[in-house]
Amino acid sequence: MITRMSELFLRTLRDDPADAEVPSHKLLIRAGYVRPVAPGLYTWLPLGLRVLRKIEKIVREEMVAIGGQEILFPALLPKAPYETTNRWTEYGDGVFRLKDRRGNDYMLGPTHEEFFTLTVKGEYSSYKDFPLLMFQIQTKYRDEARPRAGILRGREFIMKDSYSFDVDDDGLKTAYHAHREAYQNMFKRMAIRYVIVSAVSGAMGGSASEEFLAESEIGEDTFVRCVESGYAANVEAVVTAVPEAMPFDGLPEPTVHDTGDTPTIATLVEWANSAGLGREITAADTLKNVLLKVRVPGGDWELLAIGVPGDREVDDKRLGAALEPAEYALLDDADFARYPFLKKGYIGPKGLLANGVRYLVDPRVVDGTSWITGADETGKHVVGLVAGRDFVADGTIEAAEVRDGDLSPDGAGPLVSARGIEIGHIFQLGRKYTDAFAADVLGEDGKPVRLTMGSYGVGVSRLVAVIAEQQHDELGLRWPASVSPFDVHVVIANKDAQARAGAEELARDLDRLGLEVLLDDRTASPGVKFKDAELLGVPWIVVVGRGWADGVVELRNRFTGEKREVAADGAVTDIAAALTA
Amino acid sequence: MITRMSELFLRTLRDDPADAEVPSHKLLIRAGYVRPVAPGLYTWLPLGLRVLRKIEKIVREEMVAIGGQEILFPALLPKAPYETTNRWTEYGDGVFRLKDRRGNDYMLGPTHEEFFTLTVKGEYSSYKDFPLLMFQIQTKYRDEARPRAGILRGREFIMKDSYSFDVDDDGLKTAYHAHREAYQNMFKRMAIRYVIVSAVSGAMGGSASEEFLAESEIGEDTFVRCVESGYAANVEAVVTAVPEAMPFDGLPEPTVHDTGDTPTIATLVEWANSAGLGREITAADTLKNVLLKVRVPGGDWELLAIGVPGDREVDDKRLGAALEPAEYALLDDADFARYPFLKKGYIGPKGLLANGVRYLVDPRVVDGTSWITGADETGKHVVGLVAGRDFVADGTIEAAEVRDGDLSPDGAGPLVSARGIEIGHIFQLGRKYTDAFAADVLGEDGKPVRLTMGSYGVGVSRLVAVIAEQQHDELGLRWPASVSPFDVHVVIANKDAQARAGAEELARDLDRLGLEVLLDDRTASPGVKFKDAELLGVPWIVVVGRGWADGVVELRNRFTGEKREVAADGAVTDIAAALTA
Repeated sequence: MITRMSELFLRTLRDDPADAEVPSHKLLIRAGYVRPVAPGLYTWLPLGLRVLRKIEKIVREEMVAIGGQEILFPALLPKAPYETTNRWTEYGDGVFRLKDRRGNDYMLGPTHEEFFTLTVKGEYSSYKDFPLLMFQIQTKYRDEARPRAGILRGREFIMKDSYSFDVDDDGLKTAYHAHREAYQNMFKRMAIRYVIVSAVSGAMGGSASEEFLAESEIGEDTFVRCVESGYAANVEAVVTAVPEAMPFDGLPEPTVHDTGDTPTIATLVEWANSAGLGREITAADTLKNVLLKVRVPGGDWELLAIGVPGDREVDDKRLGAALEPAEYALLDDADFARYPFLKKGYIGPKGLLANGVRYLVDPRVVDGTSWITGADETGKHVVGLVAGRDFVADGTIEAAEVRDGDLSPDGAGPLVSARGIEIGHIFQLGRKYTDAFAADVLGEDGKPVRLTMGSYGVGVSRLVAVIAEQQHDELGLRWPASVSPFDVHVVIANKDAQARAGAEELARDLDRLGLEVLLDDRTASPGVKFKDAELLGVPWIVVVGRGWADGVVELRNRFTGEKREVAADGAVTDIAAALTA
Repeated sequence: MITRMSELFLRTLRDDPADAEVPSHKLLIRAGYVRPVAPGLYTWLPLGLRVLRKIEKIVREEMVAIGGQEILFPALLPKAPYETTNRWTEYGDGVFRLKDRRGNDYMLGPTHEEFFTLTVKGEYSSYKDFPLLMFQIQTKYRDEARPRAGILRGREFIMKDSYSFDVDDDGLKTAYHAHREAYQNMFKRMAIRYVIVSAVSGAMGGSASEEFLAESEIGEDTFVRCVESGYAANVEAVVTAVPEAMPFDGLPEPTVHDTGDTPTIATLVEWANSAGLGREITAADTLKNVLLKVRVPGGDWELLAIGVPGDREVDDKRLGAALEPAEYALLDDADFARYPFLKKGYIGPKGLLANGVRYLVDPRVVDGTSWITGADETGKHVVGLVAGRDFVADGTIEAAEVRDGDLSPDGAGPLVSARGIEIGHIFQLGRKYTDAFAADVLGEDGKPVRLTMGSYGVGVSRLVAVIAEQQHDELGLRWPASVSPFDVHVVIANKDAQARAGAEELARDLDRLGLEVLLDDRTASPGVKFKDAELLGVPWIVVVGRGWADGVVELRNRFTGEKREVAADGAVTDIAAALTA
C-alpha cells in the first residue's frame, strides 16, 4: 500500500518543542511521530506507531525463536499477590495504585513476576512440563518522579517481559543464555550500538544479571569498559583491580605528627609536602575515613566507617549497591557529638577499631600499603600507618568511585566510562518468587521440586527513542531499514503533470514489489518536501524532480547523504536493488 | 511453524469453572484460552491470544481499507479534557480513577473522543486536511458494577475505536456509511451472525446511530425485528406503528360509571365485562395513566402523566430513552398526598389536563379511539372517552413496552424480539465534542468551520467470546478458519514409531504450505487427544491413527462432524485442498 502524504495524519514542526531536551525527543515531536498528552504520556501518531510495531515484531520473532510462548496479562492487577512478595509496599510511590468501585486495591503493573509465577503454578504440576519460557509485549506503568526525555522514560510504556521456569539451575542458565543471544540478535537487527554490562558484582557469580545499555551521551546509566578486553560493567558492579599485597619488610614504623588545622585531604597533603617527608605526597597517599550510620530495614542504626584513598570520593550508587538492602546516612554533627572519640577530620583506623566501630576499606588498601591518616586526636595525623601490620580492617567494600584510567578488573587495560540507556535486562532470579508462592512441581524422583526462575525485559517503546537518539543527524531522524516506517520515500518535486504521473507509477511499481512506499504528493514546494524527507528519516529517498525531463530520477541515501541519478525508465529495478543491497 | 502440544502452555480442564455461567466463558476457560486474574480481568493464554490477534488483524485490515489511519493513545489520561465535556462527572462510578504521585487526577480511558478531537485540533487547520478517519486498537477500562460472562463484559478489554472528522454533514454521512460497510465486512469474515439495529428513534434521523448486535440468547441487549422487511431496532429505538385516526361520527358520548373498588386494570376490566357494555372488554380497551415526576439536570421536579393502553406496561428503558437527558421517578405516596386531585387508581385525562399536568400518550391513542379510563373520582371511571374529541393530550411518547407480534413500524409484518450482544456501534456524533473544544478549521471561503465528528467502536476482545458463543457445540469450541488459533490440528493417535514419524512429516509438509499446524505429539491416550481436539475447536483435525497401517489418515471437520479417510501418501495435498475449499 502506498501512503500519501497528502492524506497522512502528519504535521511536521519547524521548531523544537519548548520542553524537549534530548535530540530524540525533539525530533520525534518535530517529525510528528509522537505527541504528548501529559507528563510521561504520549500518543503514537501513524509514523511512530509504524516504527513501534516493527520493533515489536523483531522482538517477538526473536522471542519465539528461543521457544518463547506469548501470552498477555492485564495491566490492572489486584493487590494480593504483591502483598505476598511485599512489593505492594516496596514499590512505594513508584507505581500507580487505584481502587475499584468496591474499594478493592489495584496496581497498574510495572512488571509481572508474581502473576507469571502464579499462572505457572496454577497450570503445571510435573517436571515434565519444563523448561518453560513465556513472554508478553504489554503496556506497563511507572509513576516516575521525573518523567523525562519523551518516550525514553515515560509513565506508560510498552515492554517485552519474559519469564523462564526451570526445575534446576542448569535449565535457568540455559534460558538466561538463550535470552542473552536473542537480545543480541534483536538489537543487531535494529542496528543499535550497545554494550552488555554486569549489573551485579562479579563476586556474586558474574552472569546472574546483565544489562544491555545502548551507548548514548544522554543516557542515565554510567558504565565503564575496557577497550582491550571488552569487559563492561555498571559502575555499581565494577570490581576493583586489587594490587598485590606487599611485604612489610623495611617499612618504617608509623609516626604521629602535629599537623595543625588540617581536617581536609587538601590541607593534609599541603602539610605533608611542607613537612619534609622525603617524597612528593599526593592525595592518593592519604587514607580518608568516612563515617556512616547503617541499618537493615527494621533494625537499629549502627556505625560504619569506610576507608578510601584520599584521592577518591565514595560513590553513592556503589555504596548503596554494596550495602543493599541496608539503609545508610552520613553522620551529622549530632551523631558526632554522641561519639566523642570521633575527632572529625582526624579519624584514623586505630581509634575506630579500638572503639569497636565496624571498619571496611577500599580493596586498594591491601596489606603492606602505607598511609597518612588521622591519629584520632584533633590536629594530629599519623604517617606510615601500614595496613595489615598496624591495623586490620573488618573487610573491604566496593564504594570508592570508579575513574577513567582505573585498571580493568581483568587487568587487560584501563577502564573508560561512558553513558548508556538501559534497553534490556536479563536476570537469574532464582527462587525468590517461587519461594513466595511455594511453586513446586513433582520431580522425576516423585518429590516436590521448587521451580527456579529468570526474568528478562526489553523496553520496546523506549527503543524507538534509542534508535532515534543513536541514528539522527543535524537534519533529522534516520531509521535503519528494519524499523523504518517506510522502505522508501518518493518525493514529487516537479509540477509537471507527466512527472507527477511518472512518480505515481514509480510508487505503484515499488509497492507491487512489496515495498512500503511513502509518496509525497503534496502541493508544497520541493524545498519543504526535501526538509520533511530529511526530518522523517526514511533511509531511501527517491526524488522525481527536474531530472525527469532528462529521463532520470534521483536516489538519495539518508544515512550517507549520497545521491545518484537513476534512469527513470526501469528505475524501480535499480531502486529495489539499492534498497536490498 | 509447528506448535507442539507437548510444549504448548496449555492445560485443558474437564469440569466447568464454578463461577462461569455462559457457554463461551466455560469453554474458553476449560480449553485453556483465558484465565481469570480478578473479577473482569483475564489473562490471554497462547491459544486465546492467537484468536485475539487474528480478530485484531481483520478489524485493522477493514479499517485501513476505508482509509483509517492507525494511531495509539495512552490508556492513562489526564482529567482536564474530560472536565471540559463534563464526562469526568458523568462517568460516575463507571470508570477507574487514580491520582499520580503529585496528586493529579487521571482516568483509565473508556473511550477517547476528547483526545482525538484535541489531537486533530492541534495538528490540522484547513478544510483541505479533511476528510480524516483515525482509529486505534487499544486497551480500555470500565469499572463494571457486575463484571460477568468472562471476557464478554470485562473491566479491561480491547476495543477498536475510530473517529471521523469532516467539515460538513455529507462528509460525516460518508464516513458513517463507510464504517457500516467495514463492520459488515469484518463480521462476515469472522462468520458472526448479527443484526444492525437502530439505536435511536427513527424520528431523530434513523441512521444517526446504529448498533451491531450478535445474535445470542445470553445477550444483554433485547432488540426486535421484522422478518418480512428486515427492520431491526433496539427496544428503545422502536417507533410504534401508528394506527390511522378514526372519524368521531357515531361514537357515543362518554358516560361516567360507579365502578366500585377498581383501582387496577384487572378489576376495571372485570367490572366492565359485568356491566353489560354490549361487547367483550379487554385491558387494551382501557387507558392507564402513569404519574411521574421529571426534571432536567439541575431543574425542578415537574409532574408528567403518561397514558398507555391498559394491556401494556411502561418500559423503563424506552421511557428513559424518550425522556433523556431528564431524570424521572414514579410518584410515591407523599407525592400523591401533595396533589389531592390525583385519585390514585381513578386518574383520567380530563382531570390531568384540567389541572395543568403535562400529559403524553402512547402513539396508539390516536384521534377517534375510545377508552375506558379514570373519571378523577375515587370509585368512578368513564366509558367511551374519545381521544381528540373529549381530550387532547400534549403529545405522544414512545414509552409503552414493545411486544412480540406488534406491527413493524414499516407495516411489513409482526415484530419478533431476540437477544443480542453489542459488538459494534456507529454514531454520528455531530459537533458535541468539536463544540466543547472549539475545533474549527479554515473553510474554503476563508471562514472558520466547526468540524463534525463520528465515533465508531468494535469490541475486539469481546468478539473472541461472541464467536465462541455462536459457534460452540456440546463438545467444545469451534472456530471459523479466519480466526482459528491454527489451521489444522494433527493428532498422533498411534504409538507406532513409523506412524509418529509419518505424522511429524505430514505436519512439516502442512507447515511448508504456510498452514499453521497444531501437532498433538503428547503421550496421552487417543481418547484424551480426541476430546481435547474437540474442545479446542480447530476447524480441521487430522488423525494419524490405526489406519496408518493401511496407508490412510482421517480428516475430520469440526463443524460438520464429517470424517473421511485420505491416503497417507499425498495426504498433504488432499488436506490442503479440503482446508481451502
